Amino acid sequence: MPNKNKSNVMWGGRFSTGQNQIMQAINSSISFDKKLFEQDIKGSIIHAKMLSKVGIISREIAQEIVSGLEQINNEIMAGDFEFSEELEDIHMNIENRLTSIIGSSAGWLHTARSRNDQVATDLRLWVREEIDEIAKALASLQKAFLVQAESHYKVVMPGFTHLQIAQPVTFGHHMLAYVEMFSRDTKRFINARSLMNESPLGSAALAGTSFKIDRNFTAEQLGFDRPMLNSLDAVSARDFTLEFVSTCAICATHLSRFAEELVLWSSAQFEFVEISESFSSGSSIMPQKKNPDAAELIRAKAGRINGALVALLTIMKGLPLAYSKDLQEDKEQVFDCSENLKKSIYSLTGIITEFSPNVDRLAAAASLGHSTATDIADYLVQNLGIPFRKAHEIVGKIVKVADKKGISLQELDLKTLQQIDEGLDAKIYAFFDVENSVNSRKSFGGTSPQCVLEQINYWKDILKC
Amino acid sequence: MPNKNKSNVMWGGRFSTGQNQIMQAINSSISFDKKLFEQDIKGSIIHAKMLSKVGIISREIAQEIVSGLEQINNEIMAGDFEFSEELEDIHMNIENRLTSIIGSSAGWLHTARSRNDQVATDLRLWVREEIDEIAKALASLQKAFLVQAESHYKVVMPGFTHLQIAQPVTFGHHMLAYVEMFSRDTKRFINARSLMNESPLGSAALAGTSFKIDRNFTAEQLGFDRPMLNSLDAVSARDFTLEFVSTCAICATHLSRFAEELVLWSSAQFEFVEISESFSSGSSIMPQKKNPDAAELIRAKAGRINGALVALLTIMKGLPLAYSKDLQEDKEQVFDCSENLKKSIYSLTGIITEFSPNVDRLAAAASLGHSTATDIADYLVQNLGIPFRKAHEIVGKIVKVADKKGISLQELDLKTLQQIDEGLDAKIYAFFDVENSVNSRKSFGGTSPQCVLEQINYWKDILKC
Amino acid sequence: MPNKNKSNVMWGGRFSTGQNQIMQAINSSISFDKKLFEQDIKGSIIHAKMLSKVGIISREIAQEIVSGLEQINNEIMAGDFEFSEELEDIHMNIENRLTSIIGSSAGWLHTARSRNDQVATDLRLWVREEIDEIAKALASLQKAFLVQAESHYKVVMPGFTHLQIAQPVTFGHHMLAYVEMFSRDTKRFINARSLMNESPLGSAALAGTSFKIDRNFTAEQLGFDRPMLNSLDAVSARDFTLEFVSTCAICATHLSRFAEELVLWSSAQFEFVEISESFSSGSSIMPQKKNPDAAELIRAKAGRINGALVALLTIMKGLPLAYSKDLQEDKEQVFDCSENLKKSIYSLTGIITEFSPNVDRLAAAASLGHSTATDIADYLVQNLGIPFRKAHEIVGKIVKVADKKGISLQELDLKTLQQIDEGLDAKIYAFFDVENSVNSRKSFGGTSPQCVLEQINYWKDILKC
Amino acid sequence: MPNKNKSNVMWGGRFSTGQNQIMQAINSSISFDKKLFEQDIKGSIIHAKMLSKVGIISREIAQEIVSGLEQINNEIMAGDFEFSEELEDIHMNIENRLTSIIGSSAGWLHTARSRNDQVATDLRLWVREEIDEIAKALASLQKAFLVQAESHYKVVMPGFTHLQIAQPVTFGHHMLAYVEMFSRDTKRFINARSLMNESPLGSAALAGTSFKIDRNFTAEQLGFDRPMLNSLDAVSARDFTLEFVSTCAICATHLSRFAEELVLWSSAQFEFVEISESFSSGSSIMPQKKNPDAAELIRAKAGRINGALVALLTIMKGLPLAYSKDLQEDKEQVFDCSENLKKSIYSLTGIITEFSPNVDRLAAAASLGHSTATDIADYLVQNLGIPFRKAHEIVGKIVKVADKKGISLQELDLKTLQQIDEGLDAKIYAFFDVENSVNSRKSFGGTSPQCVLEQINYWKDILKC
Repeated sequence: MPNKNKSNVMWGGRFSTGQNQIMQAINSSISFDKKLFEQDIKGSIIHAKMLSKVGIISREIAQEIVSGLEQINNEIMAGDFEFSEELEDIHMNIENRLTSIIGSSAGWLHTARSRNDQVATDLRLWVREEIDEIAKALASLQKAFLVQAESHYKVVMPGFTHLQIAQPVTFGHHMLAYVEMFSRDTKRFINARSLMNESPLGSAALAGTSFKIDRNFTAEQLGFDRPMLNSLDAVSARDFTLEFVSTCAICATHLSRFAEELVLWSSAQFEFVEISESFSSGSSIMPQKKNPDAAELIRAKAGRINGALVALLTIMKGLPLAYSKDLQEDKEQVFDCSENLKKSIYSLTGIITEFSPNVDRLAAAASLGHSTATDIADYLVQNLGIPFRKAHEIVGKIVKVADKKGISLQELDLKTLQQIDEGLDAKIYAFFDVENSVNSRKSFGGTSPQCVLEQINYWKDILKC
Repeated sequence: MPNKNKSNVMWGGRFSTGQNQIMQAINSSISFDKKLFEQDIKGSIIHAKMLSKVGIISREIAQEIVSGLEQINNEIMAGDFEFSEELEDIHMNIENRLTSIIGSSAGWLHTARSRNDQVATDLRLWVREEIDEIAKALASLQKAFLVQAESHYKVVMPGFTHLQIAQPVTFGHHMLAYVEMFSRDTKRFINARSLMNESPLGSAALAGTSFKIDRNFTAEQLGFDRPMLNSLDAVSARDFTLEFVSTCAICATHLSRFAEELVLWSSAQFEFVEISESFSSGSSIMPQKKNPDAAELIRAKAGRINGALVALLTIMKGLPLAYSKDLQEDKEQVFDCSENLKKSIYSLTGIITEFSPNVDRLAAAASLGHSTATDIADYLVQNLGIPFRKAHEIVGKIVKVADKKGISLQELDLKTLQQIDEGLDAKIYAFFDVENSVNSRKSFGGTSPQCVLEQINYWKDILKC
Repeated sequence: MPNKNKSNVMWGGRFSTGQNQIMQAINSSISFDKKLFEQDIKGSIIHAKMLSKVGIISREIAQEIVSGLEQINNEIMAGDFEFSEELEDIHMNIENRLTSIIGSSAGWLHTARSRNDQVATDLRLWVREEIDEIAKALASLQKAFLVQAESHYKVVMPGFTHLQIAQPVTFGHHMLAYVEMFSRDTKRFINARSLMNESPLGSAALAGTSFKIDRNFTAEQLGFDRPMLNSLDAVSARDFTLEFVSTCAICATHLSRFAEELVLWSSAQFEFVEISESFSSGSSIMPQKKNPDAAELIRAKAGRINGALVALLTIMKGLPLAYSKDLQEDKEQVFDCSENLKKSIYSLTGIITEFSPNVDRLAAAASLGHSTATDIADYLVQNLGIPFRKAHEIVGKIVKVADKKGISLQELDLKTLQQIDEGLDAKIYAFFDVENSVNSRKSFGGTSPQCVLEQINYWKDILKC
Repeated sequence: MPNKNKSNVMWGGRFSTGQNQIMQAINSSISFDKKLFEQDIKGSIIHAKMLSKVGIISREIAQEIVSGLEQINNEIMAGDFEFSEELEDIHMNIENRLTSIIGSSAGWLHTARSRNDQVATDLRLWVREEIDEIAKALASLQKAFLVQAESHYKVVMPGFTHLQIAQPVTFGHHMLAYVEMFSRDTKRFINARSLMNESPLGSAALAGTSFKIDRNFTAEQLGFDRPMLNSLDAVSARDFTLEFVSTCAICATHLSRFAEELVLWSSAQFEFVEISESFSSGSSIMPQKKNPDAAELIRAKAGRINGALVALLTIMKGLPLAYSKDLQEDKEQVFDCSENLKKSIYSLTGIITEFSPNVDRLAAAASLGHSTATDIADYLVQNLGIPFRKAHEIVGKIVKVADKKGISLQELDLKTLQQIDEGLDAKIYAFFDVENSVNSRKSFGGTSPQCVLEQINYWKDILKC
């Protein structure tokens, strides 16, 4: 492979030859880090202002730089900027273009900084904005669940454990369980934002600089809480990406859990909900199909995000200080992870907004599987003074008899019941009823409509809706 | 495989036959969940007290239960408890033993709860204690770094990027970078603790209960901040384990970074530090070997903990509500992860406490690789008014000439320098010196001894040492 | 932490002090590598025989060593061997015990080898045996599927895509799909076995040895196909564990897919199969529950094995040659992975052997969801000469009309059909029938009973059953 | 979000409305699956020829279809094809364009197939081609190592364990270790290719078809070894992607190991090799830097590929049969993994082709760290009849004395040696020499130049170079 490239104009002073083309293919990051252009330009503008403020460069030069950078921002926004693979990354592409616009004054911009602190700054700004977007998206998702919860707060449905019908619950209660999960996810994102919101800018390559810069100024102007305390750490640290991506992974796991339920619930066997056509797909061969594609993809995205997390963790493992080029591999993972998490949240919000529970099917299913057996046991404890473990055993025998006869519990006659335990009387029949069952579950956090309404009001207050 | 087992005495009412032996092998969790015995007993005691407080059981029965449970706790502590595989898990083992101690009164204990909320409570209590231990261990580790930093705050050493010598830094500065990382890790653990410190107890199987229980009482008695708001969520949620394990993984990544540096630094090529014999191993064949085994194992443990994280994330992906048996697989991962993280932290603390930097080797290495080239460029900017990008290019040429001659930068005579740029004068030679270099890096967070001392004092204050 | 340990008796010649207790806790591997005792002793016996064969040690000493090792093997088998943490690992424990049995002659055993080639040999032998066990277990699993397939080869059931009913298939066909998957898994294990079956023994620490050893002899005696060609590679290579574990992960993924189907199929909504009580569990609170715990655990084990794979891959990433202590972390992952895969296979085999499909429920479900819509489209193509894409569109309209009326396709009268496409005639009604549908799918590999029988015979021949 | 889209023209017969825009964003795959266009067109051409061959469509229509598809292939190659997001995927984009070229005849193409078998076919063809490219790339990489091995087969360098100098080895031997690793990787790829080279085409949606198709013909024409035996399995199976990606991950791990060595070796501390400028990068701030960026990126790519593997494994876990939309997420992972593995292999091949070992530095390092201590021990065994374990202890003491005096072993005088063991005589001094050491390691696979030459010749024969 002949090597026709010249040495890099930005850092190639000591180099005799340019890079190999293969090298360029593996080394260049402009194809993906151009995503950081706004953050990069913003950081450079603040850096230039600071350099001028402390007297390292003149106000005139600073003004030239700022204008040039603003022009570049507009060019990129308008799609008029030609990115060059040879210039490697977004930083060099922008600085090079700045030179072509304002000439040698551009050469002052990189004073007292390095690409190491620059990229760390850019990426923190980028992740911070994503967190803000994700937090908003999660709030909308919670509201969508809340609307469903309120609309159907007392609709009875089967509650499952092990995908076996366990006890009747209310549809509102089930919806609210997800409001809880996404509320913790939101807190996790906010915690991550708070931990990462420190400025690496001015750490230079790794050791700080001999220029009398003002890191507090740049930190503040960029919305950071403070400059990072240790310049070596500042250019090496990527735990903020690890925390961001692991928080995404946990959130994606929650999304995948409801996505799985959607896939189950929209099957012919369950028919608990109908997903709107706008979130379904058809089949190229089977004309009757209406598939829950969006739900399946949300379920799968959890895998994709787990993969990003593993990639990052593996990349970071065992890296000595300070910056190593391995860190370049973090960006695509972070970008892809965030984009796909947002797609999942938006899609799920859309699905929930548009779906409707099949109230009759839910009610019918709620009484399958002897779902009120626990109520009977609780009745024995509360009314006949039987210890729970003994009560559990008695009801187990009742279930066995009903199964043998192939009937439901309430279809057993009193005589049969009394053969199992002679203390049983006719009052027990009320406890076979699923409505009674959910109404009785009034313990804090329980599934009774009354408890659910309280939870709904709590969340409406929190989410301001 | 004949099946000689009887049906489970605790929940087997509806079962005709017992479990297959293979089933028992895959299903039984007692071999590992016995680790939760203290948490389980503690939770049961508080649950019994609550049942009595609200009048569901009598004070006498509650007292019997509490005494019985305390006896069981002592038996397990003393190694006198025989765990049974057939009884599946720690909950059934303890309840069964309680029955043999206090008789049928034991049957009241499981009123208004399920193993689903019980195990969720146990595991939250366990993780909470581990976080407290880990936070303490991390503080000790930070102090060990801080002691090294203070002892050698102005020792000059090479700072690396890409494992190439970049600029001289101070040993104290390098140590403090890790104090920063572990400080963020600690905050992450504290955040995780705060998010998970809610009580699932009283959620029963999934729907809450019709018994008039007091979940605030049990929550408070167990040190939780509040009862969880939604019983379905309470028994299904395992994001607290995901957050705990991902926080461990990030921390293990930081540990692995310093472990890698230890392996490098104790090689014959670096000889930057000597690891004490007490943290080294020998070879079965090569009599001269002194290997940094502990550091290598710390590096490897990051892999192990990443594995635990992936296991948990995969297990949780796509699980419908509420409890599924898949969740049983979370415990071994959480236990193993915590144990190995603690081992790593303790070992690294030991290593750091006992190691000593080789000051002469560090100093000699600091001036290799033209490490002060940036200082020359900065000099050109600050004193000759040359834009940085131009200055960078000039120094690049100086480096190329020195390399060609096979000498260091300061060995170049002034004439040669002036052939590259005629503005250069003899003042430049002061900027080739590594001591001058580190002393000049006085920007906030920089590597100068003065900055390092400030950081040390900051951390001594925070860590109260 | 006081350090009371003496320096290691096996390799401590150059050490002044012993290891720290924390060091011992992280460094000692005897708690898990004792699992390799048989392989270790077998390897040592063959090594001693070789040393004697080529004249490096006398026949008498070799005989002493062999007898001593056989005695140790018996002691461990009988549970009479006391493993010592201080002696670190299985190799040193055995050599130390050998010394106490036969005295200084034991000192000859470690001639021309190192723990590096020794442990690599042990682990290869161990993995090889596991592969043989797993291959047998997979054959039994395939036979269990095959028995079900044959018993119910023409039972009609719904075939799903996207968990939506797609087209009717036969139960036998569905069972055979898994026979295919596990057949590829078996081949993968056999391929892995073949690639790893080379002997590292005699590579010594990394460079080979000056002793005139016979590596072909030891390789052959240990059942290896050949000695490894490069001693540096031989002690560093762990791709055989990576391949083994990734093969396990793929197999576990297949197991998890059927486990998921079992969980679905045994739900009240599906009721496609009944899992025997011996592979189910009950609930501590809900007396009626019969949960598919084994299936859920099999599903979860896939996560555990994925975790082991990630742990190994992370550990190996970026390790320079030759042996590093990081490799010690591979063993627990390999052991745990193999044990859990076997548990999963055995459990699934048990479940399948004992379950029975609910033929009526399957048949009823097969005609839900307009499952024969594709048959109608194919009919239009084959009999009316309509291009498939057009036919697909026509049937789509038929489906829409039926859905609007809330009836099945065959309940539409001919007139309605002809309003959609006037070419339609009464012959079409035969194509709404699910039996006709499956019978028609006679393309190679198709679901028709006839094709299924051919596949059954093929597999009976291969699996010799 | 208003929904302006119409229902899909290809499968939308039963749909009243189109998809939501969010839905399109998550659901559409054309942005990445267009990569499969060649495979898709090839598969469609063969499918059309088969349909004509067996008489399902006329020769004329088949000819129209084939010509149309060839035209589309040319359009895409030339960049003249406009991909549409609304048409979802590559299959629908191509079929839709075919309709616009040849009209309603295009409607016949999808007879007796589904996108389910179509995409499975496409992806198998794609992966198969990638494997062939990777295998070629690995052969070139091996040759590059082999050239280095032959050029420097007897250059002495330190062999490391635990990154501590262990014993002298030859540079050729070290290079050959990697030839071994990549030879196993190649075999793994070939095994994967062989297992996956079966045709799913003709399995249709999942059940096969009632059309009398010839799956043997399409299999053969597409270069597959046979049609897959079970249509349900054929459309559901993705173990071929899992095996491909895990094989990539193992290979990437090997690449990362040498990449790590390159990073170490090109540091100022090691200076074992010089990486050519064409595979290095400079610094934006430090003018002297020449960083081993390519090596670092290769090291990091292992993380990326591990991530892809985890993504795929997580996605596949617990998916019921047959096709689920989750499978759409596999493609980007497979594409990204393959592309990055190839980049890594090409880059490493380039680096190795252009680098040169620093023979003097290697030789100097080889005698550091008492690297011949094992030789002394072996000498004691072979010449003084001392058991190895005793000899090991004696040499340990010699090392301790030398370390105390701060000298090398050969600088110890005979008297001092005899104080440790009186049997020692002057012959021992020859064994301190590193050249003698490597020359003595003549056991099979050992590091002696003679053994290395034999290995080189073996590999030249295999690799035909």
